[in-house]
Amino acid sequence: MEQQFIAWLRERLPAHPLLRLGPGDDAAVLRMAGMDECVITIDLLTDQVDFLLAEVDPRRIGRKALAVNLSDLAAMAARPLAAVLAVALPRQGGLELAVQLYEGILPLAEKYNLAIAGGDTNSWDGPLVITATLLGQVTARGPLCRKGATAGDRIIVTGAFGGSILGRQFDFEPRVNEALLLKDRYELHAGMDVSDGLAIDLSRLVRESGLGAIVETDCIPIHEDARKLARQRNDGRTPLEHALGDGEDFELLLAVPPKEARRMLAEQPLDVPLTDIGLYTAESGLWQREAGGPIQPLTPSGWEHSFT
Amino acid sequence: MEQQFIAWLRERLPAHPLLRLGPGDDAAVLRMAGMDECVITIDLLTDQVDFLLAEVDPRRIGRKALAVNLSDLAAMAARPLAAVLAVALPRQGGLELAVQLYEGILPLAEKYNLAIAGGDTNSWDGPLVITATLLGQVTARGPLCRKGATAGDRIIVTGAFGGSILGRQFDFEPRVNEALLLKDRYELHAGMDVSDGLAIDLSRLVRESGLGAIVETDCIPIHEDARKLARQRNDGRTPLEHALGDGEDFELLLAVPPKEARRMLAEQPLDVPLTDIGLYTAESGLWQREAGGPIQPLTPSGWEHSFT
Repeated sequence: MEQQFIAWLRERLPAHPLLRLGPGDDAAVLRMAGMDECVITIDLLTDQVDFLLAEVDPRRIGRKALAVNLSDLAAMAARPLAAVLAVALPRQGGLELAVQLYEGILPLAEKYNLAIAGGDTNSWDGPLVITATLLGQVTARGPLCRKGATAGDRIIVTGAFGGSILGRQFDFEPRVNEALLLKDRYELHAGMDVSDGLAIDLSRLVRESGLGAIVETDCIPIHEDARKLARQRNDGRTPLEHALGDGEDFELLLAVPPKEARRMLAEQPLDVPLTDIGLYTAESGLWQREAGGPIQPLTPSGWEHSFT
Repeated sequence: MEQQFIAWLRERLPAHPLLRLGPGDDAAVLRMAGMDECVITIDLLTDQVDFLLAEVDPRRIGRKALAVNLSDLAAMAARPLAAVLAVALPRQGGLELAVQLYEGILPLAEKYNLAIAGGDTNSWDGPLVITATLLGQVTARGPLCRKGATAGDRIIVTGAFGGSILGRQFDFEPRVNEALLLKDRYELHAGMDVSDGLAIDLSRLVRESGLGAIVETDCIPIHEDARKLARQRNDGRTPLEHALGDGEDFELLLAVPPKEARRMLAEQPLDVPLTDIGLYTAESGLWQREAGGPIQPLTPSGWEHSFT
């Protein structure tokens, strides 16, 4: 069955100029001439944690496995090059499931001109696991890193936050093109994608940059899904708390020098809004302020894998 | 805990000239200047299929996760460059387990000068899953592929086969240096590593090359472990059958023009033996012959993931 699936996949993979040798051998061979630097990222998704196989179309799961990695390339302002994927499939229905996963993967790969270079298809008695490794090309302006923010930089974000569990956790668009455009046109000091939650990811960026940050909470773009989720759950968590802590927004979180930030906000060069939500500070720690009120600590809420 | 583990790992990773930016950001940045081609491979290992966590030192599991991928690089005659790893850890004892896995990974990475570029550390309620993606550099003589064997080529293998379940499935040495040396000194038409079983992997090589093969069964180097296993199991499977079908030998299986093969066998340039076990043929199919007797079909036995 493994060979049958590989044959199915090889028929469906379009030729790609990067692939000197595609799936089917012990490894794929990629043409890398002229690339001084490349970025590499890996993400692994598991049933019950990143998706519920029983409730979600496997095409959306396959798409998500690729999209979260594309978001990591966006976070580095890198152009997508190639992907390899590995799956651990439940034995029952594994072939159909593998096909459906790839029916979600292939269109997204094509959209971003990403070569599917290979994969590893396994079966076992456990739940579905899917992992992807992506290579990206750093542009002439270099990679966008978490380190590099300067005190005084503005905290700029794309899009809106919170409530992604209502569907955006699967159907989000990785901000690849947005990151490339911003990196090309503006001076960006640092950046990342928001996967675990706006507050916790901001805490990571400031730690890597050796800074702190003050977030103007009334400036945070709250997604309509965050309001909807707060109404649905009615558990006392406000839409703002959802926006700060839900995660899986897969928006960009940037550090931009103030003058560049003003220009960027005036020009609004993207299809999604760019918003200034606060200030990076020399003093470490994460702080919040509401509508010019007193500065208070901001506890980084968000998702972290716990294992003890 | 995830952040704590990443901090532990970052402290232990030696600097590597390939790594412009190592683990800790959204992606790693690799220096690739001057590399025209690279190979990429991914393998995913699961508890109960590729190892039994309850019975095996996790260091050997971590080592194996890297070694099977190094063997894929060897199969392409590529020099190891960089790796990214992802794990899905059981929640209980996950941190200790992650540390032990990496205590098996790091020495092998160092031995092959492989940069650990990053990883993804997850926890869940399922069994242990570990996956690695490796990048390798193709040498000036190009990659070694499954396609390219010619009728009349000799079937040359390194080492001996069968019974790897007695321990070599974990402790095998990936034939990285052997493959690089052979590719450098001899003309090799095609090659792969034997992971699923000598017969089934040979059937894949001949299919990709559009050929067939006749195996001289009395020439196959049978590992002492195959004999030991046949004695232990006493189930009628002969040592030869173990050698042909057990898999996880991680030896090289090559197609070598006859003159080169003779030279290679006379010189025996490796620490492990090189053996001629038969002939690639224009006629497709897999055949065997014992001590000059009649030619009979060889059913490709070996491991294949089954999912329906």
